[in-house]
Amino acid sequence: MKKYKADITVTLKKGVRDPQGTAVDMVLKRTGLEENAEVQVGKFFTLSVSGNDESDARNKLNKICEDVLSNPVLESYQVERFLEV
Amino acid sequence: MKKYKADITVTLKKGVRDPQGTAVDMVLKRTGLEENAEVQVGKFFTLSVSGNDESDARNKLNKICEDVLSNPVLESYQVERFLEV
Repeated sequence: MKKYKADITVTLKKGVRDPQGTAVDMVLKRTGLEENAEVQVGKFFTLSVSGNDESDARNKLNKICEDVLSNPVLESYQVERFLEV
Repeated sequence: MKKYKADITVTLKKGVRDPQGTAVDMVLKRTGLEENAEVQVGKFFTLSVSGNDESDARNKLNKICEDVLSNPVLESYQVERFLEV
């Protein structure tokens, strides 16, 4: 059994309203930090997955991302890092 | 004025309790997806910053991360991508 460490980002799909992002935009504008920052807010996960080999662990990771970490109707996920530990 | 696009992750500092991560761990264990996933939950931001040059924009970005996107007492941030657009 091999063990892998993965970093995952979950972001809203294009066209889905992002009120958190809009709120941060307004703060940055009001404080004069940035006029139009076009902020998008998402989630970030670090986790370990085990598997017989890399392909087995990646399949399990994709299932975890689709079933638990994201809502596939509104969100998409991206595997940013995937390393054996 | 140059414009840059940045990806930022904000995570809890070591030793800070992560109840969201623990909740995901429990779901993964209960559903049999992963015995001990050691999930850590953070935030992910994509935003634009402008500046006279890269160093100016990076300084502004660091200020935005420290003052608005993270709580420096409990969280640390990481600039994952920084590209001119």
